[in-house]
Amino acid sequence: MKDSNFMDNDFAQHASGIVSLAKDLHSRGWLLGTSGNLSAVVERDPLRLAITPSGADKGELVGERILLIDEEARVVGNAESIAGKPSDESPLHVALVKAQKAGAVVHTHSVWVTMLSDVYGDDGGLAIEGYEMLKGLRGVTTHLHREWIPIIENSQDMRALAESITETVAKYPGSHAILLRRHGMYTWGRDLNEAKRHVEILEFLFEAVGRTRELRVVTTTR
Amino acid sequence: MKDSNFMDNDFAQHASGIVSLAKDLHSRGWLLGTSGNLSAVVERDPLRLAITPSGADKGELVGERILLIDEEARVVGNAESIAGKPSDESPLHVALVKAQKAGAVVHTHSVWVTMLSDVYGDDGGLAIEGYEMLKGLRGVTTHLHREWIPIIENSQDMRALAESITETVAKYPGSHAILLRRHGMYTWGRDLNEAKRHVEILEFLFEAVGRTRELRVVTTTR
Amino acid sequence: MKDSNFMDNDFAQHASGIVSLAKDLHSRGWLLGTSGNLSAVVERDPLRLAITPSGADKGELVGERILLIDEEARVVGNAESIAGKPSDESPLHVALVKAQKAGAVVHTHSVWVTMLSDVYGDDGGLAIEGYEMLKGLRGVTTHLHREWIPIIENSQDMRALAESITETVAKYPGSHAILLRRHGMYTWGRDLNEAKRHVEILEFLFEAVGRTRELRVVTTTR
Amino acid sequence: MKDSNFMDNDFAQHASGIVSLAKDLHSRGWLLGTSGNLSAVVERDPLRLAITPSGADKGELVGERILLIDEEARVVGNAESIAGKPSDESPLHVALVKAQKAGAVVHTHSVWVTMLSDVYGDDGGLAIEGYEMLKGLRGVTTHLHREWIPIIENSQDMRALAESITETVAKYPGSHAILLRRHGMYTWGRDLNEAKRHVEILEFLFEAVGRTRELRVVTTTR
Repeated sequence: MKDSNFMDNDFAQHASGIVSLAKDLHSRGWLLGTSGNLSAVVERDPLRLAITPSGADKGELVGERILLIDEEARVVGNAESIAGKPSDESPLHVALVKAQKAGAVVHTHSVWVTMLSDVYGDDGGLAIEGYEMLKGLRGVTTHLHREWIPIIENSQDMRALAESITETVAKYPGSHAILLRRHGMYTWGRDLNEAKRHVEILEFLFEAVGRTRELRVVTTTR
Repeated sequence: MKDSNFMDNDFAQHASGIVSLAKDLHSRGWLLGTSGNLSAVVERDPLRLAITPSGADKGELVGERILLIDEEARVVGNAESIAGKPSDESPLHVALVKAQKAGAVVHTHSVWVTMLSDVYGDDGGLAIEGYEMLKGLRGVTTHLHREWIPIIENSQDMRALAESITETVAKYPGSHAILLRRHGMYTWGRDLNEAKRHVEILEFLFEAVGRTRELRVVTTTR
Repeated sequence: MKDSNFMDNDFAQHASGIVSLAKDLHSRGWLLGTSGNLSAVVERDPLRLAITPSGADKGELVGERILLIDEEARVVGNAESIAGKPSDESPLHVALVKAQKAGAVVHTHSVWVTMLSDVYGDDGGLAIEGYEMLKGLRGVTTHLHREWIPIIENSQDMRALAESITETVAKYPGSHAILLRRHGMYTWGRDLNEAKRHVEILEFLFEAVGRTRELRVVTTTR
Repeated sequence: MKDSNFMDNDFAQHASGIVSLAKDLHSRGWLLGTSGNLSAVVERDPLRLAITPSGADKGELVGERILLIDEEARVVGNAESIAGKPSDESPLHVALVKAQKAGAVVHTHSVWVTMLSDVYGDDGGLAIEGYEMLKGLRGVTTHLHREWIPIIENSQDMRALAESITETVAKYPGSHAILLRRHGMYTWGRDLNEAKRHVEILEFLFEAVGRTRELRVVTTTR
């Protein structure tokens, strides 16, 4: 384990990055009504994760409210927030950090994700290919890439959801996001910057896919 | 009644919270053209409500313009605004504060609410269920929740509308909002923060419901 | 004529109001690409109008660039801008100020106005009624109001357009706006605040009318 | 070649203009996820171009990261960024600067461009005419103007794409933009201000064209 001063600095930096990204995504309408949550790995072994507290307005977040949790999603740090409770979905963040070796996880709730996760829910996922914007996803070097975004059914049993996410990542290790049906998106990255890039890229692509479905009807019914 | 200094502090805090929320909702396009109004309970017995004045541009609001009214919607405080007139819809705020024991009431005018209140108007309301975002509504713990949003006909008789709202709350005490047809939404909360959360959650859901109706046609006519 | 110091103060105030409103409307996407223009009456007799210069980026406007023109749309003041040229559409502003006795005129270019002015162009206008938001228009006291928005054909002959506007106002003196087909909206008010309110109210209504047309197809084709 | 102090001042000014425009376009959602790039001519002979680095978050850009490249797209200046790599699409900027004698080039990725470049891709372009907003394009003086926007197939071979752009400009010298299919838009101007104006005008027109296609179905299927 790192010494505690170093740890404190690291934690403060990650907390500040989380707050800044949360405000940004809230202003775009992807974290409305205290929905969604963000986390960043402060230490890998033992696992220490900076994470947003349950029920926070992401537009009014401050660094003092960010919590430090362990791999059991128990609060292990940040005295100022001792009264805070980590997000109920913390086990999903832990699962993704482990399965994807991610350094940051962002869970957003956008209108387009909510809709498409339902429209394509029975197919178990949706494929996006042929868009230049796909190159914004880590490791993708051509628009010819075919990105499979798995969709899993929503549930209030967070341990079961975490398992479902772990299985899905094992089945589709190359995917950059997972949708929960009528719920939202989980994406991740090596760090918060990469996770932010993935959120922007994927939200763009979902809007393009959704609007294209709307537009196609015109061609079809003419 | 509380002593007047304490009252002044309380009022100033609520006025400041109202101004900040009004600007935020105006920037999102939900309070355009001086439409909408916001209130917060300063004292419960006798009832004292801080409320936005009639005809104010919510993007340019200042605390000095917020009024203090009693349960008859008469101005009883805030000398700076003595020339101000409380919103014509003040009786609706009073009705909701009493019927729902709310600490804050927010009335917004969004495009999606305006449209859906008309499309579902003949049904007397619309049901929203199966969305994770529903958990942002007070007391809701699962996406399986079925939220009934009553819609009442619009009118310029504010006393009649206030009665209609009181009856509707009595009939659907578990609902978190009421729509006025082709007019707007009333929602509320224990305090301004909760009312803000409800506005964001409900506007998100109305947009998702509206856009899904648009998207469905594609599937249907293919 | 007022004395020149008084005039300068008045002009500076109106110029500052125009700049602030222009930035606001630009950020909402209603004055993109140097399109649109705004004016305010500084003096009535002889007519003196503060107006935006031709070709200005409304998001980068400064008060020094606002011009003072007379009823022939000739620049008569603001030495800093002596090189500036008033908007080609200045005669339309003068025509509206005279015909409607308006204190401010705002001409915006929004996507919804552009579309609806075309869809309803052959009908010579569109009627909007039954919306609470109509009460944001000067003198309207009920949602039952029927607002007729005349649409006139676009032209590059500004004198002819100005005449067409004068005739249209004479024919429909109760209307609060005129659309130029596939071009934009002219609205006005007693002062800049009222003109701003009219822009927000009307843009809201056009979006609601446009989206409702999109939504209706779902009902129709089911 | 200009002397180096003069050059430094010029470069710093262009870098600052690029940063400011990049942030603005990012906030509108046209440069999400590090997509897109901007350049401005600092010197014409030999060609020196200030350009955004590869992989930069346009909302977090700073002037120190802007690079100076030559006509072979090799970095020739800005010591602070020596580790930076110019955008892979730099050859396309160089090609446009030469073929159009442009002073600035902006490449954006918007949802509407992505969709329309696909819908009209098989036609090799789309024509836009009859809109007043067309007058925001350099040299256009009437809404009757017919703007042809060529669309070329996307590719990861940047030298081939640069040639394709050069050929397209030679074939349609009067066009103000080129779309890459399912990729994005290239537009340009005498300077950054004009390029910004062209982005705003064209994005407005693409949204209007796209939404009109959506709206038309209503009329058609009634």
